Amino acid sequence: MGVVASAPAKVILFGEHFVVYGEPAIVLAIDKRAYAKVELRNDKRVHVRSTNLGISGYFEDNLFRLETGNEQAKYKLEPIKKVVDKISEISGKTAGLDVEIRSTVPVAAGLGSSAAVAAATAMAVAKILGVELSKEEIFRITYEAERIVHGTPSGVDPAIATFGGTILFQMDTGVKPLEAKMDIPLVIGDTRVSRSTRNLVAQVREKRKRFPSIVDPILRSGRQIVLRAIEAIRQGDIRTLGELANINHALLCAIGVSSESLEWLITNARKAGALGAKLTGAGGGGCMIALAEPDRLEAIAEAIQRAGGTPYVARKTDHGVRIES
Amino acid sequence: MGVVASAPAKVILFGEHFVVYGEPAIVLAIDKRAYAKVELRNDKRVHVRSTNLGISGYFEDNLFRLETGNEQAKYKLEPIKKVVDKISEISGKTAGLDVEIRSTVPVAAGLGSSAAVAAATAMAVAKILGVELSKEEIFRITYEAERIVHGTPSGVDPAIATFGGTILFQMDTGVKPLEAKMDIPLVIGDTRVSRSTRNLVAQVREKRKRFPSIVDPILRSGRQIVLRAIEAIRQGDIRTLGELANINHALLCAIGVSSESLEWLITNARKAGALGAKLTGAGGGGCMIALAEPDRLEAIAEAIQRAGGTPYVARKTDHGVRIES
Repeated sequence: MGVVASAPAKVILFGEHFVVYGEPAIVLAIDKRAYAKVELRNDKRVHVRSTNLGISGYFEDNLFRLETGNEQAKYKLEPIKKVVDKISEISGKTAGLDVEIRSTVPVAAGLGSSAAVAAATAMAVAKILGVELSKEEIFRITYEAERIVHGTPSGVDPAIATFGGTILFQMDTGVKPLEAKMDIPLVIGDTRVSRSTRNLVAQVREKRKRFPSIVDPILRSGRQIVLRAIEAIRQGDIRTLGELANINHALLCAIGVSSESLEWLITNARKAGALGAKLTGAGGGGCMIALAEPDRLEAIAEAIQRAGGTPYVARKTDHGVRIES
Repeated sequence: MGVVASAPAKVILFGEHFVVYGEPAIVLAIDKRAYAKVELRNDKRVHVRSTNLGISGYFEDNLFRLETGNEQAKYKLEPIKKVVDKISEISGKTAGLDVEIRSTVPVAAGLGSSAAVAAATAMAVAKILGVELSKEEIFRITYEAERIVHGTPSGVDPAIATFGGTILFQMDTGVKPLEAKMDIPLVIGDTRVSRSTRNLVAQVREKRKRFPSIVDPILRSGRQIVLRAIEAIRQGDIRTLGELANINHALLCAIGVSSESLEWLITNARKAGALGAKLTGAGGGGCMIALAEPDRLEAIAEAIQRAGGTPYVARKTDHGVRIES
């Protein structure tokens, strides 16, 4: 007897990197979800197991005992403990818990896996402890957990994990839901090349410092891509979204954040019939996305696979964090 | 006993396509030259042979007789007849001539081969007829010959072929010499994929019409690349030129004029140590250029060869049209 909750992953459709300079970005919840199963224990331990990461251990009296995995495990499981603590604090109840994480979200690929895990855990723990939490509260708890992982997160990942759907994000105005009735069929291609978001952001900052008069108009072009994309989403115009994806990707190349592995998957996705393809997230490795008519998705996924990437056919989802059982 | 004259080919270093919208471009004369050897004949025929194109024939009483090649030959040899006629007109002298064209310039690759041939022919014919022509006159004759080939040429190719060196070109101000003391070592990679400049220019026009607010900032960024490049050339800063080449190429991708074959050569040139690489000219095929330290040129040429392109190590030349013997 336990409670299972889930929350969605995200892809950045347009505007990554440019958001750092105040430009808007469009982010999508996708139907790859993280699942948290929570059960009450007879002791006071908070036991956490992540089947995907192959790590487990428990927290007791604020000490961590490793069971499976290496010393990194504590660092990776701590946000989950943070979520449990936060809910105990709100409810005034403490209990020993078994938390089991399963996920269909590729990890460390810029798809918001950690936020999805935190949001799902928050909802499941609240449910089993009999606490009523609003979505806003889950968002805030997820955001706090993300701070452990990311330092100063933008809030995009927690918002997507909690609310689902499509959002417009901008530094100074924050998260704004975007009406998006159309389906946005896409294939994610994971290069499985690891990269440092921090370094890539620093690299772009350096390029902008060296060439401000060259980079600033590129940022303005990026803003216009987002504004035009909002219109295309409203009109259900997947072809225009594809064209805009190609332009956006070229601008990301201009600021130097693509990589050979990304280019290779993108080229192959386009050849397999994608209407447009771009890197998503920090670049330098990580993931790309291809937009396509639904009947081309499988062919594109195959092309990405053949090119050495890991493909995930994905769809926009409006389902944010939810109880599964 | 004859006269040999030669004239240089060109590469566009920065700003192709954007020039159509009034932005500046930087163009370089390179040490690949077209040679015209002219000899007097005893009859009134103007006999022309192009060893590179494998065509020959003669003009007599304004009729063309084909000797070698197909019906395209007349169209290709006509500009040379035009040059001869023009100089006969200026000098008041007519004579039968043998004109032989040899060239180290790849043909129909956007490197200004036809202008180099016309300029070299003009100088050699003038010399053998004993006419003193200023460079301005040769420029004008070359420009007129180019009109047969290109309709409304920009004047860039005739200017480079005649004057050599480095020029700044802009639609409304025309050709302006640019002081460039530094060596600009580069490798040209010919994809040998043919393309239509006309179609590519039309395609960009279409994209700009669809997305003016997205494309216009890209054009402004392109202008700033040229301005920054002028500074880098003045400072002899080949590294910055390389960086700018990479950014410029990405902007050309954004307006949709790169191609798989170009990307492949560019990727391989960068991996072989190029400081920067970009398509040059119309795109969609044709040529790319890689900027590099002199000691990397051979390795880059080899990489381009291995990738299926035809490489040409080239250098900027200040020698415009000239008599060779």
